[in-house]
Amino acid sequence: MRIPILVALLAAIISPSTLHADEGMWTFDNLPLKRMQEKYSFAPDKAWLDHVRLSALHFGGASGSFVSADGLILTNHHVGRGAVGRISTKERDLLKDGYIARTRDAELKVTMTLRVLQLMENVTEKVNAAAKPGAPEAESVQARKKALEEAVKEVEQRSKLSCSPVTLYQGGEYWVYGYEAFDDIRLVAAPELQMAMFGGDFDNFTYPRHSLDFMLFRAYKDGKPYQPKHYLKWAQTGPRIGDLTFVVGHPGSTNRLWTLAQMNFAKEVTSPLGIRGSERQREVLLRYGKQDPEKARQVQTSLLGIENGLKASKGYFAGLLDDEAMKRVQAAEAELRGRVAKDPKLQAQAGESWTRIEAALKINRSLAPALTVLNGAPGSVLAQLRTLVRGTEGTAPRRGGARGAVAEELEAMQLAAWLVEAKAILGVQHPIVMQALAGKTPEEAAKVLTASPLRDEAARKNLAAAGKEAIQASGDPALALARLLGATVRDLQKQQDEQVTAVIQEHAARIAKARFAVYGKDTYPDATGSLRLTYGPVSTYEANGTRVQPFTTMGGLFDRHFGWGGNAAAIENGAWALPQRWLDSEKRLDASTPYNFCHAVDIIGGNSGS
Amino acid sequence: MRIPILVALLAAIISPSTLHADEGMWTFDNLPLKRMQEKYSFAPDKAWLDHVRLSALHFGGASGSFVSADGLILTNHHVGRGAVGRISTKERDLLKDGYIARTRDAELKVTMTLRVLQLMENVTEKVNAAAKPGAPEAESVQARKKALEEAVKEVEQRSKLSCSPVTLYQGGEYWVYGYEAFDDIRLVAAPELQMAMFGGDFDNFTYPRHSLDFMLFRAYKDGKPYQPKHYLKWAQTGPRIGDLTFVVGHPGSTNRLWTLAQMNFAKEVTSPLGIRGSERQREVLLRYGKQDPEKARQVQTSLLGIENGLKASKGYFAGLLDDEAMKRVQAAEAELRGRVAKDPKLQAQAGESWTRIEAALKINRSLAPALTVLNGAPGSVLAQLRTLVRGTEGTAPRRGGARGAVAEELEAMQLAAWLVEAKAILGVQHPIVMQALAGKTPEEAAKVLTASPLRDEAARKNLAAAGKEAIQASGDPALALARLLGATVRDLQKQQDEQVTAVIQEHAARIAKARFAVYGKDTYPDATGSLRLTYGPVSTYEANGTRVQPFTTMGGLFDRHFGWGGNAAAIENGAWALPQRWLDSEKRLDASTPYNFCHAVDIIGGNSGS
Repeated sequence: MRIPILVALLAAIISPSTLHADEGMWTFDNLPLKRMQEKYSFAPDKAWLDHVRLSALHFGGASGSFVSADGLILTNHHVGRGAVGRISTKERDLLKDGYIARTRDAELKVTMTLRVLQLMENVTEKVNAAAKPGAPEAESVQARKKALEEAVKEVEQRSKLSCSPVTLYQGGEYWVYGYEAFDDIRLVAAPELQMAMFGGDFDNFTYPRHSLDFMLFRAYKDGKPYQPKHYLKWAQTGPRIGDLTFVVGHPGSTNRLWTLAQMNFAKEVTSPLGIRGSERQREVLLRYGKQDPEKARQVQTSLLGIENGLKASKGYFAGLLDDEAMKRVQAAEAELRGRVAKDPKLQAQAGESWTRIEAALKINRSLAPALTVLNGAPGSVLAQLRTLVRGTEGTAPRRGGARGAVAEELEAMQLAAWLVEAKAILGVQHPIVMQALAGKTPEEAAKVLTASPLRDEAARKNLAAAGKEAIQASGDPALALARLLGATVRDLQKQQDEQVTAVIQEHAARIAKARFAVYGKDTYPDATGSLRLTYGPVSTYEANGTRVQPFTTMGGLFDRHFGWGGNAAAIENGAWALPQRWLDSEKRLDASTPYNFCHAVDIIGGNSGS
Repeated sequence: MRIPILVALLAAIISPSTLHADEGMWTFDNLPLKRMQEKYSFAPDKAWLDHVRLSALHFGGASGSFVSADGLILTNHHVGRGAVGRISTKERDLLKDGYIARTRDAELKVTMTLRVLQLMENVTEKVNAAAKPGAPEAESVQARKKALEEAVKEVEQRSKLSCSPVTLYQGGEYWVYGYEAFDDIRLVAAPELQMAMFGGDFDNFTYPRHSLDFMLFRAYKDGKPYQPKHYLKWAQTGPRIGDLTFVVGHPGSTNRLWTLAQMNFAKEVTSPLGIRGSERQREVLLRYGKQDPEKARQVQTSLLGIENGLKASKGYFAGLLDDEAMKRVQAAEAELRGRVAKDPKLQAQAGESWTRIEAALKINRSLAPALTVLNGAPGSVLAQLRTLVRGTEGTAPRRGGARGAVAEELEAMQLAAWLVEAKAILGVQHPIVMQALAGKTPEEAAKVLTASPLRDEAARKNLAAAGKEAIQASGDPALALARLLGATVRDLQKQQDEQVTAVIQEHAARIAKARFAVYGKDTYPDATGSLRLTYGPVSTYEANGTRVQPFTTMGGLFDRHFGWGGNAAAIENGAWALPQRWLDSEKRLDASTPYNFCHAVDIIGGNSGS
């Protein structure tokens, strides 16, 4: 595919299960070796595959690789940013200023567990056997879930590895993946944040790209640098146009095997709702930040995060709105359904599955918007009080507890904006809306709720100590709202779990099995955060009315700084401003040095660092 | 308008007569001074306007300016390319190698007449008075045409200037423009072609832009450098984002005042037909050029020209396909028609004009495709034979005569492709198609036609000397086809002139007058190659998922070369390859030097050089 990563991403999100060009996030047990051989005259053998798999690291939600015999690890700067931020102090800001450990002693321990995939065991048969034929959907789903958990435990005991369940092909396959874990990880080098995120949110998800987005860590075992048997070696020369490249990493989540009904549901319900919610949050943060520079600084990181997410979700939404692509999904689905209908056995097993999923989604139309809005209720007070209420009821929190203290003023603004939205989506008669507003305007109501005396931790502890009845009896408006919110969400969630999620899980799995029966296994599963390999050439591509160059250069980095007419620092918070030490070094750098490059590979969030 | 030139162009092509932002190619007698003052706190006065007008040069189909007290003239390289090509030789290739006259003596005379606009005289009343009320459309059009020609003569005699007729607002106004002419023009400096067209057709009409697209000439009078009273002075500092800029030049042709029916006709008939024809020509040239490098060289210039035109016409076509924009055109037209209908006088004058134009275009549906195809018949033999036939009939050629010798092989390929298209568009029963094919395949027929003995100039001269009857009697298949082609085109053209063109001219003028009556003259006319002023700020804009920098830099030029991985010379005929002397100078250049910049102005072909 001679298209850039971003376009590949958007196109691939909604591409049908039939494959285009080099599309595919392949599992290591099922690579398209024949296709690779035909197209690139290269197909990896077992030794090659073991080598790259054992060099690859799972970084929680992202990826990395061993790149030296002494356990050096390369990943993206934004992958390590959280962990390095936590060991930064006001006096030594490792993110802002960057860091280079000039000796082993200077390497700085971070809190991080990385894992290398050592074992992949297919437990599909065992798991499927757990569900009784003809049992209700929710029951089958539950039985398989339990069987998978047991399989994980069994493999863990046998292998002494850290094991995780992996569901592939929407339930077409169940696997246990076993990992060797590394938990003594140390920071070796990071450029200054300004270089790592050069171009800011503007140049994020785009190409040409000029960010120096990397960090180096080192894995230690028993206090000594770990000596991996397998690590990726640095190329002596850079890649050239057309060179075949491989990405070995952990793509997070795709939904390409969704049915048309699921895609339409995303297009009509969840995507617009999500975008609307993010835009509301962004609007409030911008309004708050405009008041003064200190407030702008307070919200900067949140704002970047929201804008990053919005850019991705708008791209995804644009894909769903692409009629041509949706027609391809529809045609592929019609073909599979036709093939299933012709085979009595398949028809009995999965013939009704598409309509069952569609019916479940019809139910979800009255559940999903309310759940999205209610789960999106902002504010640390509400979150803490919901935890308080749940605590006494013995219910585990569904979502992370307190969300970090935000200025009370900002919290009131966020809550007011949320109330406006809740009113619009749930209706003015909805019990939550009535309880929250209590006859006031959203702004007034938000101020009252945010100013609850239970904002004080000691007050909350006292109340918790007073017990369940006291919590139920309290007349504090914020606590009353938290009680109602908790109960309402719990009730809606139960309905969704049973009537929607279980049905979709069951029938998605049946469709997956039917797809295997019809087309064989010449396809790849949706991304699930498990290890995958994708491949494609270093590429130029058509965009912006011309052809985009496959490499950016060191000189191009300076061009992106100087191209604002000498005042990059004054524009968009200095998104394209180079640090002074870079400006001072310009004449000493070779402008022709390749910097970033573009290759046509099929990746998504989670591949970062691979 | 925070949009780039290209987007402005495309948007503006189909924007309605109501104005958006800084849209407008204004004549010097009717500038939006109030609007400029309100938006930019600057409105030019008479002295300022006289100064820029008298500094501006009309370059035939393009523009330029005096830029020194000694008659130095700055324009685009591609504007001067033809004239400089004609004084180049194999030994001294001024285009390929560039040229710098280091002394006045070394300045090289080119064949070129440049003009400065000295006088603008509105002759609308006189011209309109020539048409009798109630006369048939073709008669009115003819009478006005004659009156305008007389007005030009009259002004020319009185002013001793070189005068031209100027029709504005589709016939809403008639003017005579008088120019001072300069015909001793000499080349002072031109960069090497590779720099002037750096990025080739790919980077043409796009931004960021890295071509060094300029030439310097000097005007002479009586053998001495001309000393213009008015010339543009070089800025001591470059522009900054947001700075207001002005473009004074000669935009060639727009059709923004077209009726909806005219735009739909372009969308449905002429645009697709034109694109199809160009794509056919491109396909043949590519196929011919693929045979060997020498053949590729032969067709390179034609290919670039066709690709340049295709890029523009596809952009224009995309604009026509933009439903939102077309809805605005429709709404504006409906509003004007509504206002006309409410005023009995206007209704009598122009009430039927939209439907008359639509009816004329309905007739044109059966004329325009055939005329386009027949006028597009390729090949020097056919062209020469049509000239031969016309010669004996005393008819002036409608189109340029012989089109330059092309290899007979290429001509046969072009003719075969044209026959395939003619068959598809005109139908297999069309007399021209039947005569041309004579039962053979297009390839066979094209070979026979191209191999005519009348290809030889002496043979044609002999035949011409033999007289009209001999020409009519000749059985040569190419000559027979040329005879039929000539007669058919002449007949169709006469129908189109009378039934379509005259009707549209008459009613477009009536609509223009009605528009003045309803909205006043707070608008600008379509581009007609006459002098205009447009304005707008130096701008960044959103594209490619990010924000585009307003300046390219010297370092960015090298990035665009190095960004192909060190092998720019091997890619797309070296479109991004820098000449060796530039590569050798890289270290001596300041990478931060601004190179090209982007401003949001409303321009189109013809503005080149302004």
